[in-house]
Amino acid sequence: MTPEEFRRAGHELIDWIADYRERIESLPVRAQVAPGEVNSLMPDTPPETPLEFAALLDELERVVVPGVTQVQHPMHFGWFPSNASLSSVLGDIACAGLGTLGISWESCPALTEVEEAACDWMRQLAGLSDEWQGTIHDTASTACLTAMLAARERASGYSEFDGGLQACDRPLVVYASDQAHSSVVKAVLLAGFGYDNLRLLPSDPATRALPAETLARAMADDVAAGRQPAAVIASLGTTGVTAFDPVGALVEAAAAHGAWVHADAAMAGSALLLTECRPLFDGIDGADSISWNPHKWIGTILDTSLFYVRDPQTLARVMSTNPAYLQSAEDGQVTQYRDWGIPLGRRFRALKLWFQLALDGPDAIRDRLRRDLANARWLADQVEATPDWTLVSPLTLQTVCLRHEPPGLEGDALDQHTKDWLARINRSGEAFLSPAQLDGRWFVRVSVGVESTTREHVARLWKLLQNAANESSLGADRHAN
Amino acid sequence: MTPEEFRRAGHELIDWIADYRERIESLPVRAQVAPGEVNSLMPDTPPETPLEFAALLDELERVVVPGVTQVQHPMHFGWFPSNASLSSVLGDIACAGLGTLGISWESCPALTEVEEAACDWMRQLAGLSDEWQGTIHDTASTACLTAMLAARERASGYSEFDGGLQACDRPLVVYASDQAHSSVVKAVLLAGFGYDNLRLLPSDPATRALPAETLARAMADDVAAGRQPAAVIASLGTTGVTAFDPVGALVEAAAAHGAWVHADAAMAGSALLLTECRPLFDGIDGADSISWNPHKWIGTILDTSLFYVRDPQTLARVMSTNPAYLQSAEDGQVTQYRDWGIPLGRRFRALKLWFQLALDGPDAIRDRLRRDLANARWLADQVEATPDWTLVSPLTLQTVCLRHEPPGLEGDALDQHTKDWLARINRSGEAFLSPAQLDGRWFVRVSVGVESTTREHVARLWKLLQNAANESSLGADRHAN
Repeated sequence: MTPEEFRRAGHELIDWIADYRERIESLPVRAQVAPGEVNSLMPDTPPETPLEFAALLDELERVVVPGVTQVQHPMHFGWFPSNASLSSVLGDIACAGLGTLGISWESCPALTEVEEAACDWMRQLAGLSDEWQGTIHDTASTACLTAMLAARERASGYSEFDGGLQACDRPLVVYASDQAHSSVVKAVLLAGFGYDNLRLLPSDPATRALPAETLARAMADDVAAGRQPAAVIASLGTTGVTAFDPVGALVEAAAAHGAWVHADAAMAGSALLLTECRPLFDGIDGADSISWNPHKWIGTILDTSLFYVRDPQTLARVMSTNPAYLQSAEDGQVTQYRDWGIPLGRRFRALKLWFQLALDGPDAIRDRLRRDLANARWLADQVEATPDWTLVSPLTLQTVCLRHEPPGLEGDALDQHTKDWLARINRSGEAFLSPAQLDGRWFVRVSVGVESTTREHVARLWKLLQNAANESSLGADRHAN
Repeated sequence: MTPEEFRRAGHELIDWIADYRERIESLPVRAQVAPGEVNSLMPDTPPETPLEFAALLDELERVVVPGVTQVQHPMHFGWFPSNASLSSVLGDIACAGLGTLGISWESCPALTEVEEAACDWMRQLAGLSDEWQGTIHDTASTACLTAMLAARERASGYSEFDGGLQACDRPLVVYASDQAHSSVVKAVLLAGFGYDNLRLLPSDPATRALPAETLARAMADDVAAGRQPAAVIASLGTTGVTAFDPVGALVEAAAAHGAWVHADAAMAGSALLLTECRPLFDGIDGADSISWNPHKWIGTILDTSLFYVRDPQTLARVMSTNPAYLQSAEDGQVTQYRDWGIPLGRRFRALKLWFQLALDGPDAIRDRLRRDLANARWLADQVEATPDWTLVSPLTLQTVCLRHEPPGLEGDALDQHTKDWLARINRSGEAFLSPAQLDGRWFVRVSVGVESTTREHVARLWKLLQNAANESSLGADRHAN
């Protein structure tokens, strides 16, 4: 395709995207397709003759759009905010258009150095100490795995350079709370520690945070049994109920054993932009690594997962490769981001952050986050003030964890009721919410924070919740009769 | 940013990109900036007041463009072709504009199912057996790590679910040739096997391929010593000289020990599109996994790394997570790509492949690959026909491995000469090439295959090579006098 052909098609596509974002509220939030339905619309064999761009846009509309769960829809309250702010989309388009290659500093000095600058801007906005140096990973899952690999190597005396983890004589152990994200378990298993050496410690029943004493005791027990504490994951804003582990106290407990502390603030890290929220993160500067996804609440389009370390040397030692074909005269004077993570080739992701910060400005972002906190507070207040409705956990940020508990319903029957009214809403396409479990029982998470979600949308959701729960109760009654 | 603001800025950006791609030949190939120069142009603190889009484009021009090594430039012959075809760029822009979230089938059924279809189209175009099922990873580094993790778990009886790799009683061993890519070593070390359990076996001095007998012997030796062969990486198109391991024979040798065979065809896999090149990959259908990067020669913009497995169940068993908040009614009937790799959140990468195949068509892609093969052949012929110039390895695809060997120069002096004339060219900005080593001596790789590189560009390069080598020889003479 020539640049001129690209120019024409590109203008069509920009208009299509702008129109799409304008009409998003008219689309169902949850994709209404059945399993296999999208695939059945795709030809079984690859295209043979080239398609006109207009025809391809028609295909996009016909095949793809109905199969998209609209996380940019203002009535999306599921999982977590996954904003793709249009300012950051422009940065992503610039990245695509430039078509750069990031395999070494030499392959694109700007890719490396703009990433250094943008990560430092984000550090400053978050009020983190200037000891942190950052990079951008694809996701917090990858960041957590990277942290676990660094922790494993530090604790094992860099066993990768001799017998590997399989030659370690003392079992290495990792600690997290029972509220930690599934990616934490995955990272620990992939890093080779083994499930037997992962302690998912009981969180406090009221706050769902991991008490430092619990951690300290577990570590002492392991040491007494001949095992070695290698890493601690502090969950700062759990996925379930947005609980905050006391990271400062965990850092102190871990220090006694030289264990690596990874602060997983994937979703909630965005709250660091608000000074009034920073007490939740007290002591984070003592951790060894932090992950935080601007691609969630802040809205720098996926994949933009910040990963900060205080000691890049350890990371580079674990991850470094320096093959002959990548060597250049500047080696040693520059950052080689390939040594800060798993992939060799990297995209120019920093443009997304730069464009969003430059075009929207930090003030607008902070205002929006505060709006979302107030909207979540409003909804939590309605829940608390309404009979038969309960907050299953105190509101800490923008995720309201609630349950409708009609008199006489409990146990499995209550679970069934919860799943039933949730399914009614999700199936309707009018709003979308996620289920979760606490103490083995289901509840519903209302994650407020889509860029276009206003108070009116939250109020509309509250009506939907009440109607769906009532209909479900009536349906259950009818069924009982 | 509103959709209307995005529309206006988006049109400006499309024009900027089209203009940029049009004038790319007027820019130096290698970025001419010094370490730290780009960073020094970035403000030390984050933007405070929003910028107009036109002003941001000026910044992009002033700060970023001089810091880009132009891998889309027709005189780029470095590393490997890293084409970002404009047809695939449109797919990437569509991905950004849609702003989808891929954490489960439910979060975007189209993301999952178009990926299934696009990976299958590529499989068909490559002539691979229909036993393969594919997904898209960011890079071949990540794909190789994923393969090593699957291999480790299969060989250890899924130790991740109990004591981990650290509890394995027999050391697990991995095999590859001494020509394997640095990412192979990195993957093996990160997976925890340890360098002592990685056998980088001597390749054949003529073909640089790993003889199957060498592998079989090494495995037998390890078994005799109480160790367990866990994985073999077959390099199909090495980075240095594009050597091809005999994958069929390696598969046979590995089968005797139940070792996982990963076929690393990151760069050369694109040649599967040409039936005349398929004999190089003979037996690949017997491997356990394949990685192949359309983001290299084919030009589906980074990050598009295909990863195929024949047994997705094993992969899912190793990688699976199924937290409550991601569960939906369709689980069990659909593919959950989060269980095929490391990250939870995934971009809608399949759009890049779809757009490129639909807009350019496979015929045009195949024609271009054949053009590049012919151009490389032409250059290799010039080298062979010219006194003092040598091919250090037979040409297998599109990378010409050469050295200028003036009479009387050898050893370190020859190395110095090679590095000197290479640096002259790279510094000039007129063309860009990469160094590499073979048997401890430097040579220069000319990787032909940028989308816009014609025979004229290759002819111009050949003149540049001769001039630079002669100047270097003269410089050395003067220095000697």
